[in-house]
Amino acid sequence: MASLKVNRRLIMTPGPVAVDPRVSQAMSNSILGQFDPDFTDLMNETMELIRKSFKTQNKWAYPIDGTSRAGIEAVISSIVSKGDKVLVPVIGRFGHLLIELIERAGGEVHTITAPMGQIIPQEDIIKEMDKVQPKVLAIIHGETSSGRSQPIDQLGKAAKERGAFTVVDAVATYMGQDIPVDEWELDAVIGGAQKCLSVPSGITPITYNDRFSEEINKRKRVEEGIRTTEDGTNDSNFITSNYLDLTQLEGYWSERRLNHHTEATVNVYGLYESLKLAIDEGVEQRARRHSYHHQALKEALTAMGLDIFGDQDYEMQMVVCVDIPEGMQDTEFRGELLQRFGIEIAGTFGEVAGKIWRIGTMGYVAEKHNIMNFISTFGVFLQAKGAKNIDASAGLKALMEFYDKNEL
Amino acid sequence: MASLKVNRRLIMTPGPVAVDPRVSQAMSNSILGQFDPDFTDLMNETMELIRKSFKTQNKWAYPIDGTSRAGIEAVISSIVSKGDKVLVPVIGRFGHLLIELIERAGGEVHTITAPMGQIIPQEDIIKEMDKVQPKVLAIIHGETSSGRSQPIDQLGKAAKERGAFTVVDAVATYMGQDIPVDEWELDAVIGGAQKCLSVPSGITPITYNDRFSEEINKRKRVEEGIRTTEDGTNDSNFITSNYLDLTQLEGYWSERRLNHHTEATVNVYGLYESLKLAIDEGVEQRARRHSYHHQALKEALTAMGLDIFGDQDYEMQMVVCVDIPEGMQDTEFRGELLQRFGIEIAGTFGEVAGKIWRIGTMGYVAEKHNIMNFISTFGVFLQAKGAKNIDASAGLKALMEFYDKNEL
Repeated sequence: MASLKVNRRLIMTPGPVAVDPRVSQAMSNSILGQFDPDFTDLMNETMELIRKSFKTQNKWAYPIDGTSRAGIEAVISSIVSKGDKVLVPVIGRFGHLLIELIERAGGEVHTITAPMGQIIPQEDIIKEMDKVQPKVLAIIHGETSSGRSQPIDQLGKAAKERGAFTVVDAVATYMGQDIPVDEWELDAVIGGAQKCLSVPSGITPITYNDRFSEEINKRKRVEEGIRTTEDGTNDSNFITSNYLDLTQLEGYWSERRLNHHTEATVNVYGLYESLKLAIDEGVEQRARRHSYHHQALKEALTAMGLDIFGDQDYEMQMVVCVDIPEGMQDTEFRGELLQRFGIEIAGTFGEVAGKIWRIGTMGYVAEKHNIMNFISTFGVFLQAKGAKNIDASAGLKALMEFYDKNEL
Repeated sequence: MASLKVNRRLIMTPGPVAVDPRVSQAMSNSILGQFDPDFTDLMNETMELIRKSFKTQNKWAYPIDGTSRAGIEAVISSIVSKGDKVLVPVIGRFGHLLIELIERAGGEVHTITAPMGQIIPQEDIIKEMDKVQPKVLAIIHGETSSGRSQPIDQLGKAAKERGAFTVVDAVATYMGQDIPVDEWELDAVIGGAQKCLSVPSGITPITYNDRFSEEINKRKRVEEGIRTTEDGTNDSNFITSNYLDLTQLEGYWSERRLNHHTEATVNVYGLYESLKLAIDEGVEQRARRHSYHHQALKEALTAMGLDIFGDQDYEMQMVVCVDIPEGMQDTEFRGELLQRFGIEIAGTFGEVAGKIWRIGTMGYVAEKHNIMNFISTFGVFLQAKGAKNIDASAGLKALMEFYDKNEL
């Protein structure tokens, strides 16, 4: 029987991206039982690493056993109950995902929007909070669909002053930009695995503060089968998911170790190892590395003759968006790039679908040799396919110049 | 920076258990993008392997990206909506988990129960269906808390004749006992990864038939952000989870490839590889291997002087339950066995907690050398700790005799 063969890829998308082999190695360690003291110690150490990654003193910092979307849903469905007003600033596809999750939770959605490629000034969001008076402000930090990094540093404090809770989807920026959760006074933040942290999709680190925890625990319901008399039953307004119920996960991730799901052992191994690598590199240094390669790639693409898409003052530091050059067809070109070279770049969603490409430099991918190889192949392949006004050599020269002139 | 070090364990519990190194190897392959044709091909092949594992022609056979509990919740919350009557036969802790999930989905729970260690005759369940007239019969195939295998081969047909849907939690028996889904006319079945299939916890294969699919699709709601006009919005009675919404997962796992979560790439690699290994061994041969070692272990434990717990006509073929011998304290003994030898056995939940131990022989663990080593150490350690009427040598002799006399 032939074993699984996977061809090498150079994934220059906004995720999922390549995994550091040291992380894969950690994930091949033996299974430990979920209540094995060696494993519960590892759970505690992983919590501490998540705290460090978010620069927070929050007690609650643990992973959800599902992909990023599971993490976002867990947070949203625990804080939003039927009829709750939620304000969602929408600057792209992932804002719509928040709307979707809030509607599923029974929340009343209010939006403030900007066209794709733009962000919304924080003062406008604060004014809208004054108007709507939401229970929750749910916002995307890195809107990958348009490559924008929405400023959020003033929103936590403003929301708190207005009695609202902030929920921040930082899936795409986590470990690629600095997200000082306590300094920004954010109530709940969701990070991502398969992007700048470079862990396989399937586990999602989150953190939230005591204020948030107190609020969601008003809906707490210890599950049938393990509940004691003092736990009560809570027959009204409980969180509708059991699997994604943060109040139950608190019981599992705290010293009470209340039986819940069987923790995803090797995903935790991978998360632990990758966070150790990231903390060892340094949260700020890692953010610098992302900005550095982002800038390098942007200069190369510009020199090559491509137009950068969107407001350049608010770019995610791990995604470059470019207009698709004249004469190139989106899916056809990307398909051929993948099939012939094993190189993947991304199209996008919504109003600019088919008009822009998104080129990611995330985590383990954000290294010189990857970007050097990418720029060479991408440029000359564009020329070979007949794209107009493309100068591959100029792109490569600009990249070499950037790396030669600028130290990380 | 020291990399993660995990000590070797011999996990003789009902899961999570050791992973076959060939599966770990497969999981260390490079990441593929989620819409990379190589990856979507692998998704399709994995669906085909899941079909074979369940001996089904069902179109729908795919994994949920979460632990077993996520798989069960996905199925329950997609089929059960507010006020729906659900009949749950309860013979242990995991029956209570079904109740919990049904209550969270707003269902009206009716139960029929048996004490732990017993099963419920199928005719009693069918009679109860006549009385309750449920929309759904939700039942545990392998109730690991008591080690019983509940007969279900007549229930699918009986439920269908009564207009009800069967939902079977086969997490613990999957790939360790034969579960011919089509022959037994089961509507929806959830398998497990971290048990007899020996894949790390975090992904959960499920299957369901067209009848089930049609029913859940009455609640279909394509998500905000990617929905088209013809999809409609469905503002009433939609499935409350987005992440675990099977109707959306159908869109993702079918040729439409409707963007949903970012598939858990390496968990799929692991599932694929382990299913290939299992299908290569043969579903029936694998069931035989589990029964064989189960019988061997049982004879050894009996010869050693331990009493087997529960109705021996309905044992799960991968868990032996024994009464804790006089003088031994449950958690203390198990803790010491784990700490000193790296060997893990399990206690249990509910009315027999502290009274029985559960010893598992699942998947990659169900091999002679593991059981030989386990029996030797377990027996002599019991003696050393002062357990009464234990004869370690007799246990080991019986095991050797079993293996010498009986071919697999």
